[in-house]
Order: sequence, then C-alpha cells, then structure tokens
Amino acid sequence: MGVLERVSEPRDLRGLSTAELDSLAAEIRDLIVRTVSRTSGHLGPNLGVVELTLAVHRVFDSPRDPIVFDTGHQSYVHKLLTGRVERFGTIRSKDGLSGYPSQAESQHDWVENSHASTSLSYADGMAKAFAVRGEKERTAVAIIGDGALTGGMAWEALNNIAGGPQNGPDGRPLVMVVNDNGRSYSPTVGGLAQHLSGLRTDPRYEQALDLVKRTLNRTPLVGHVTYEALHGLKKGLKDLLAPQGMFEDLGLKYIGPIDGHDRDAVENALMQAKRFGGPVIVHCVTQKGHGYDVAVRDEVDHMHSPSAFDPLTGEPIGDPTRTLTHAFSDALLDAGRRRRDVVAVTAAMLCPTGMEPFAKAFPERCFDVGIAEQHAATSAAGMAMMGLHPVVAIYATFLNRAFDQVLMDCALHKTGVTFVLDRAGVTGTDGASHNGMWDMSILQVVPGLRLAAPRDADQLAELFAEALDVSDAPTVVRFPGKEPADVGIDALERLGTADVLARAQTPDVLLVAVGGLAGAGVDAARRIQAQGVGVTVVDPRWVKPIDKALIELAGEHRLVVTAEDGCRVGGVGSVLAQELRDHNVDVPVHNFGIPARFLDHGKRAGILDELGLTGQGLAREISGLVAALESDSSLASSETV
Amino acid sequence: MGVLERVSEPRDLRGLSTAELDSLAAEIRDLIVRTVSRTSGHLGPNLGVVELTLAVHRVFDSPRDPIVFDTGHQSYVHKLLTGRVERFGTIRSKDGLSGYPSQAESQHDWVENSHASTSLSYADGMAKAFAVRGEKERTAVAIIGDGALTGGMAWEALNNIAGGPQNGPDGRPLVMVVNDNGRSYSPTVGGLAQHLSGLRTDPRYEQALDLVKRTLNRTPLVGHVTYEALHGLKKGLKDLLAPQGMFEDLGLKYIGPIDGHDRDAVENALMQAKRFGGPVIVHCVTQKGHGYDVAVRDEVDHMHSPSAFDPLTGEPIGDPTRTLTHAFSDALLDAGRRRRDVVAVTAAMLCPTGMEPFAKAFPERCFDVGIAEQHAATSAAGMAMMGLHPVVAIYATFLNRAFDQVLMDCALHKTGVTFVLDRAGVTGTDGASHNGMWDMSILQVVPGLRLAAPRDADQLAELFAEALDVSDAPTVVRFPGKEPADVGIDALERLGTADVLARAQTPDVLLVAVGGLAGAGVDAARRIQAQGVGVTVVDPRWVKPIDKALIELAGEHRLVVTAEDGCRVGGVGSVLAQELRDHNVDVPVHNFGIPARFLDHGKRAGILDELGLTGQGLAREISGLVAALESDSSLASSETV
Repeated sequence: MGVLERVSEPRDLRGLSTAELDSLAAEIRDLIVRTVSRTSGHLGPNLGVVELTLAVHRVFDSPRDPIVFDTGHQSYVHKLLTGRVERFGTIRSKDGLSGYPSQAESQHDWVENSHASTSLSYADGMAKAFAVRGEKERTAVAIIGDGALTGGMAWEALNNIAGGPQNGPDGRPLVMVVNDNGRSYSPTVGGLAQHLSGLRTDPRYEQALDLVKRTLNRTPLVGHVTYEALHGLKKGLKDLLAPQGMFEDLGLKYIGPIDGHDRDAVENALMQAKRFGGPVIVHCVTQKGHGYDVAVRDEVDHMHSPSAFDPLTGEPIGDPTRTLTHAFSDALLDAGRRRRDVVAVTAAMLCPTGMEPFAKAFPERCFDVGIAEQHAATSAAGMAMMGLHPVVAIYATFLNRAFDQVLMDCALHKTGVTFVLDRAGVTGTDGASHNGMWDMSILQVVPGLRLAAPRDADQLAELFAEALDVSDAPTVVRFPGKEPADVGIDALERLGTADVLARAQTPDVLLVAVGGLAGAGVDAARRIQAQGVGVTVVDPRWVKPIDKALIELAGEHRLVVTAEDGCRVGGVGSVLAQELRDHNVDVPVHNFGIPARFLDHGKRAGILDELGLTGQGLAREISGLVAALESDSSLASSETV
Repeated sequence: MGVLERVSEPRDLRGLSTAELDSLAAEIRDLIVRTVSRTSGHLGPNLGVVELTLAVHRVFDSPRDPIVFDTGHQSYVHKLLTGRVERFGTIRSKDGLSGYPSQAESQHDWVENSHASTSLSYADGMAKAFAVRGEKERTAVAIIGDGALTGGMAWEALNNIAGGPQNGPDGRPLVMVVNDNGRSYSPTVGGLAQHLSGLRTDPRYEQALDLVKRTLNRTPLVGHVTYEALHGLKKGLKDLLAPQGMFEDLGLKYIGPIDGHDRDAVENALMQAKRFGGPVIVHCVTQKGHGYDVAVRDEVDHMHSPSAFDPLTGEPIGDPTRTLTHAFSDALLDAGRRRRDVVAVTAAMLCPTGMEPFAKAFPERCFDVGIAEQHAATSAAGMAMMGLHPVVAIYATFLNRAFDQVLMDCALHKTGVTFVLDRAGVTGTDGASHNGMWDMSILQVVPGLRLAAPRDADQLAELFAEALDVSDAPTVVRFPGKEPADVGIDALERLGTADVLARAQTPDVLLVAVGGLAGAGVDAARRIQAQGVGVTVVDPRWVKPIDKALIELAGEHRLVVTAEDGCRVGGVGSVLAQELRDHNVDVPVHNFGIPARFLDHGKRAGILDELGLTGQGLAREISGLVAALESDSSLASSETV
C-alpha cells in the first residue's frame, strides 16, 4: 500500500516521516505522469511543484488558510492531497475532475482561475477580509509563477500590498510563494525575469540557503512555539528578510531564493513567512518537469501541456493533425516574406499560437512581451502609428484582458493592427475560463473594428490577407485553432463579402452560419431540404461590419436563423437582427449560439452537440421554427379572413 | 507683445533666451489659469508641467520625435507650444479644442488617451518601429505621472522594455519622463509611490542634482556634438545612471531625480537620455499646481480638474448642485453604518466617486488601490469569498479595464461584489474616451451578473440597497453621476422589478426608458399621447436580467421602443429584442441609444439632443414608427384581402 492512499486530507501529511514524504513525492509524480500520458493535460508545471505543494499543505491549514494557485493548472498535486486520488483518472473528461481548481469539487479549492496573474489580488482581498473581520489566525496563500508576475495585475497587487500595513495589529497575513521555474510556456521574458535570474545566480544565494537551514531547522515545524523561540525567530527574520532588490524597494519582505525541491527548506521558509503576520514573498526556485527526465529534457516547454503520449519516451500517441493554427502559422510566415512592415506580437504564446516559424525567419520582427495582453495591444498600436502592420496572436478568451486597449488605443486611433484569436469558440476540456466565447459579442461595440471568422484553412489565409490590407482600423481574425485544417467547404458564389454555401430552391430560410459552424450549417440545410424546406446557407466571412448584401438577402427569405460559435447574447446574430430592423427588413430572426453561462468542461464536439450547435441540432430547431411560422401564417390568414 | 505670441511651433523655442523662456512660462501659466477658470478643465496637472514641457519641446523634435502624454489631460502646455494659442479659449467646448491631445487638431498629437498607464506601451511600440524601419534618428518620448505608474499595463511595458536591447545597433530609443508630483487625483498610493518618495528624500538627491548640472552644463544643448564631447558624456553617463533601486533592478537606465521646475536641469537630463540610444527613465519631481498659489494650497487635489472658478480666490462660481454622486455617497455611508461587512474599494478616485465620507467614517474598511481597476475587482472578489460585501466605485468607462476580472474572477466565482459605475452614459466634455457608453453592452454576456440603472436619487438608494442584498453574484449600479439629484420621477406602479412611469390608454407603444433616459421617456410619452397614440413608459430598474413581467407587458403592445444612455449595439434594447423572440413574443422592437462610434466632445445635453435621446427626439422617432406600422398594417390587410 502506498503512502498516497493514506492521504485523504492535508492533515494526514502531518504525521509522515521524511522517508514517507519522499516516497509520497515519488508516488505523486508517477501517478501524474501515468495519468496525463493518457488524458492529456498540464504536466511540466505540476511535476515542478510536488515538494512545494507538500510543504504548503504541511505548514498551512487548508481550507482555513485559503490557497490560491496562479494559474490553476498547477493544482494537480493539490488535488491529490485533498481527497481526489480515486477520481484523478477522470481529469478533464466530461463529469470528471476539472483541470483547474473547482469549488464544486472541494472546499480546498477557492479560485478556479486559468487567466494568469490574479492570485495576488485574490489573496490580498482575502487577507484584507481577515483583518477587517478580526480573523487573526488565518493566512492567505498565493502560489504564483514567475511568468504570471509579468502580467500587469500582479504588479497592481504587489504595489497595493506593499503600500499597506506590513504587520502588527493591522497586518494582513499573506504569503506569496513565487514558483520561479524561469518559464511561462517558454522561458519567461522581461526585466523581472532577468532580475529573478540575477537573484538565483547571486553568490549570496548559497549563503542564504545555508542561513535559512541553520536558523530555521532549530525551530519545531509543528505544534506550539514558545515565546522565546518566536522572539529568536523574529531576530533571525531581520537578517533573512534582507534587502533583495526590487521587492525590498517596494517595501515588501522577501525570503529566498529557496530550492523549491528541498521540502524542508521550503517548509521552514513558509513557517517564517506565516509567523511574520503580514505580506511576505517566498521565492522558490523550481524546475519545470522535475523528476521526469523526459519532461526536463524537452527544451520547447518541458511538456507544459502535452496531448496523450508514451510515458517512457514522451512521444505523442496518435497522428499529428494539421490544424487551423498551422494554417495561420503558414499564412503569417508568407505575409512576413511578402511584406517587410508585418511584425508579430505574442503574449508568452509563441509556439501555441503558431508564431514560431515567423519568429525564426524574422527574429527582429517578432516580439514576445510576456503574459501582458494589454501591453501587447497598445505597443502594437504604437507600432502601427509608425508605419508597421502588427499581428497580435492570442487566445480568444485572453483578449478580454485587452478589451479596453483594443477599444481606446487601437480603434480610437484608427490603427491597422490585426488581432488573431486562436482557440475561439468552445474549446472544452480546459473548462469555463478557456472557452473563447466572448470576443464576438464584446467586440461588436468597438467602432470601426472589422471582425472575420474563417470557416476553414483557405478562408483563414484569405481573410488574414484581407485583414493585413486594412490600415485604418483594427481587424480581428478568429477561429477554433485545434480544428483540422484539411476540411474545406466550397462556396457556390460570393455575395458582397459573404460566401453562399447552399442555395434554397424556395426562399424559405436564410441560415447564417458563422465561421466554425459553417459545416454544421451546410449539414443542417441538407437535412431540412430533404423535408421540402428551402434553405440558403451563408457564411458571412466578415461578421463585422455586416455586409449590405446579407441584409438584402435576408429580406428575400421568410425566416432568418443565425448560428455562431460564440455567445448568442450580443453576438453576430443579435446585431444582424438589429440591423435588419434598422433597414426595415421585417423578417423574424432567431439566434443560435452559446448561452451566456459558464460551460462545464468536456470535449468540444460533445459540448457543441449539447448546445444544439450541430447539423442535426440546427436542423431540428429550424424545422420547429418553420412549422411554427406556417401555423402562425395560416392562423394569421384565417384571422384576417 | 508677449513671448507666447511668437511661438507658433516648437522650433520657435530654440532661439529664446533664458529670460524669454522664463517669461514664456509665466505667460503660459497665466493663460491657463484665466482660461480654465472660465471653461473648467484640468488645471493642477498642467501648471505642474510647464517647464517640463518646454524642455521636452526644446530637446526633442516633434513630430519627428513623437511625444505621448499619460494621461492626455496634462497636454495644455503642449497645445500652447504647437500653434493653438488662439483657439485655446475654446477648450472642451463643442467644435473647440479637445481637453486631450487630438490627431485632428495637430500633427504633434499622437495619442488621444485619457485612460491612464498606456504611454509606455505606445512609446515602446513606436521605438520598436523605429528599430525595425531603421529610423535611427527618431526617439519616442513618453511623459507619465507617478499615479499612472501604479496601473498594471505600465508595469507590463516596463518589464518588456527592460527585457529588450538596451542600446547599441538594436537599441530602441525611448525616453520615459516620470512626472512625479506624488499625486494621482489625490496622493499616489502603493509601494512604488513610497519608493519614489524615498528617492526624492535620499541625501544623494541633492548630490545628483549637482552632478547633473556640473557634468551636463558643459555640453552644448543643440547643434552638432563632437565625438570627444559624446565620449566624455558617455563616461559621465556611467556615473549618472547609477543604481537606483527597482528601475535598476529591472535593468533600466535611470536619471534623476531632477527638479522638474528647473528647466535647464530637465533639458540637460533629457539630452543625456536622448543620446543614450535606448530606453531611459528621467525622473522629474514636480509640484501639482506649481506657480499658482491657490492651486498649490488646495490640499484635496491641487485643483486637479475644477469647475469654473474665480482666478483670484479659486472659489467656485455658481451654486453647487447636489448630484447623483452625492446620493451614492450618502447611500454608501448609510450602508456602512448598517452593515459591518460592507467595505469600499476605489481606484485612486476616492473623492470623485463620492467615497470620501465613508472613508472618513470607516477608514479600516476603505481601500484605495491606486489606478488599478483590475486589482480593485479581483481583490474585491477575494474579500467577498471571505464574507465581506465590497463596493467597488469607478467611472463607467474605466470598468473596461477590468472586464475580464468582472467576468472570470467575480462572476465565475459567484461573488457578491457590487460595482458602482459613476459617470455612466454620455459624459461629454472630456471627449470620446470618457463617455461611459460601453458597460451596458459588454456586461450583458457576464453570466449571473445583475445590472441596475437608477433613474434618480431615490432609485439609486433603493437599487444600491437591493444590490447589497445579492451575495451570490456580482451586481452593478450605473448612473450619470453629474446629473442633479433633486429631479425625481414617481412611479405609477411596480411590475416585477420594473416601474411603470406612464400608462397608455390604448396599448399601442411600450417605451422602455432605461435609467438616465427615464425623464426623456416620460416627456416623449406626453408628446405622443397628445397625438392620440397610447404610450406605456417603463423604467426596468434592473436591466439584467430582464424581468418576465416586462416580456409579458411587451406582448400586450403593438410596438416596443427602447431608449438607453449606452451603446445601442448589444445593449439593453438589443437583449430585450432577443428575449422577446425567444419567448415567441412577435412584436417589432426598435432600439434607440448611442451609436457604436466615438463621440466628439461637447456638453452632455447637446450630445443627447444630437443623438435624438431627448423627449422631443424620441417622440419624433416613435411617431414615425407608429405611422409606418399603420401604413404597413393597412397594406398587409389590403394584400390579404
């Protein structure tokens, strides 16, 4: 029987011997590698925090002391230590464990976040609440990667925390564990990363490590601490919390750097920090993929988030699919070759967004700004003002972070910046916060902005090229990146900027099928036409602005149905309905899309099916609408008669 | 004839003597005080940057060297030096000069921003463009206040800039002038502010000032510089760019602190920085309101942005109006007295949002986080998780900065955080970026969020109290803060959560008049009813979710018209139309609101009038719609017959 099987909650860790804890760490690594090799998921980050998570759970008392992971993809070890060993094999599958913390799963999970750089703000709020409510015994714990520290909101939190009371009666107990593995997806960029790296290679590092061990090993790890011991500790603290560059300049206490794989050292540092009674940074140096050679050796991203793989070799299982991300990758490289003014901007996602080939070919024209979507957008506006055409590639869900910058900095200034939103629409397995379902709604209000939703690889290339030709307004090209690139849908004709994919014999229904739902639209039309109802299917290609030809076409039909892989509230269909009314086109419009609620995790196909956003689902709905329309008409006729 | 009249563009500054420059500074201050005392506008910030702006325009060559102000409200001096003296008296009035930089006004104006903390990103992008395009002779200049440095995106930029090439062949020439007056609106908060303050009071400050003067005064300010002089300068640079805490830790070159009112010292430092050929921070210490005793003595905000006033005494002209901001101020204070769990959060806007009385009464429950909307929202989520009910008060337009945090951090986690959005709707005189016209559209997609738009002071108090009772979802209360609080509109009855303000004799038209447009709605109804058309006027109060009673009521009318003080695209009316369709209520819906374009500056009343969002305007539109409906009906009837 392994040690892990005996751990059903964090307090079970307290009585374990050093040997048992070492064994436990090995069991956890083994289980994570075996599981993720089958389920896919976040690997490298979790292997890097095994000792750190053990130490956190031995020193703090979860859930009394809330633990916030930034981002939540590094919470697998935490899940295993909080009663979820048996269900761990279900991770990221429908009705199984989430790949992120989940309030529904455990009282030990507070924050389900997957957007980076939030943890210090949450934890600061929690610590403020403890101070206001007089809950002196509680400590908020944030675990934040060095990559997440490049995000602006982490800075806002640090600045605010540093400006508050440091300890004493008004102290806000808050331990900020910096999990410094030198990586975001790929190596962390920017001045702070270089500073952290400087701390690591400082000769004082070894001395500090020694001092930490010498000073702290004297104190008992658990149980009551006498006044004398505490008093001694406080003296020691003064030496340990030595000036350490920018954190100290800001006025923040700092302990480190600590070897994040030396569990004792981490525990001792955390005890110190906990006793301080105010905000403390504990800087732990870890290795992404630690303990699994295959991941450590992977130079791209230390197996950050692999698909299913052979646990012995790390080789992926299954044929690699050429995806829409690859299609964008080719299109960007091609644009770079054709035009010297095209530059690329990424927010720490060079590989996942497909920018790497461009970066290799044109390193001087590619800018990785770190996890910093706001800066990505506004620095792109600055570049555009000076004659370049920047391409900013980010995941659709993360564009929310730069909404104000797209609106006020790019659009108000009429800059030709092209945003490429990969992972748009339902993404599925990463859960609620990763679905790219917001962009087509919130971008509708941005004056002048043009938004394209390509349905396949050919359209992606074509629309991206058209976007690059727009120099007086921001453009957006959004698509579900993981969809196969080899599924093309031919158009019968082009009408304005839209493609007609199917023509009705009788003009009953106009089905406007946006981007990734074009295939479902064609399928739905085939099914309904078999019932004798005429369906015209149009892919608008450019969904903002709406082409006049589409308005006219709508007026020639008895019913308009829209289907989009985005939030139906405020989405393309909703705007089309408003514009039809503005143009006095009096035809009923029904919108299908993703409801405005947070979706549980599961596979994309399954979720689209549940939402009725498939050929079959749309056909069923449209048939119902047509039937209702006909009974209404006959009713109306009979009434009139 | 004054010196200012002889300056029509920046190059005219080059030949002026010291005495003339001193005289010019005095003339500029005098003109700004006289003008703003009449027009209202930003005073203290502009009086603080007179010498700094003169120095910038003497050292750099605008527009070849782009100058970016953060925020643009400190650009009045810049306007006077770039050919806009004669039109200066029209500032902030319709068709007059903008209160911010404006591309339409001048080739010297690049960035019209009024949302803080963007300048470093713009300038970094510009400097990157110069490097890519090989434009070695150009330098990007950002002027950023210490307050704006608390914003996360300034950090993202600093981190990215510090991680890039510092100088040499790949250098990106970028001068970041930190205009450090220790204030945002009120004193800047946070660790960075304390650090800057530490630099200012460091005994080395005086030494540094001396060294700057001694080293730099030897070099000619303009014209060719010999190799020897440059070489000597570079040696001097090494000493000057001495380690200075966190900027140096990040790897950024730093000159300062410089007395920002010593024009020579600033010019010399800027020359140094310009010659470095890469990013340099020039830290200038200025005094808000400098040179105008009345402003210097004002302890609240050094006359940051006063209404019209007597230039001799600083006393406001005209009677103070009790506004909706005051009504919120009272409601918050009252809530604080009734409930110990109510806490307040502001992003550097304690006074303008009306939080000051609460802060004075309950200092331990009020948190000013600096210009940091993201952190404000997410720290509030953390507080809510631990049992408090935070009230986050910000201007509606600035909520865009925290959209992702409202969605992912507050709503996904079902936290009871109440956002109070002051200055919602058309604000007018501050131009495109200050209008609070986006919130009601983008918030529609946020699952679970409830949004209230009170029409008057009584409703504000009532809806705010209702919002505080919601503990399982974020709530938003939005209103035009500057509207008078003494204009109340009585309801005839309450229907669900909505108020019926007027009842039609015949159920022809349902007019849904949201929040600030309720008065216009009642006025419109009066006008149309005089024509024999029945109009029911409803104020929904809670506009999200839409009450079922409103859906039913709509079905009883022949025509639904919505009017909102927000973007009509994706707004309340658009969602109502979609929901009516979802409920099979087949009544035509027409939406009135602010079109999705950037509005020119002007007074709120005038802009609403132009947009037709007045009683008269709505009445005209509704009459037209009713007429069209009747001719359609008769047409339809005749066709059927």
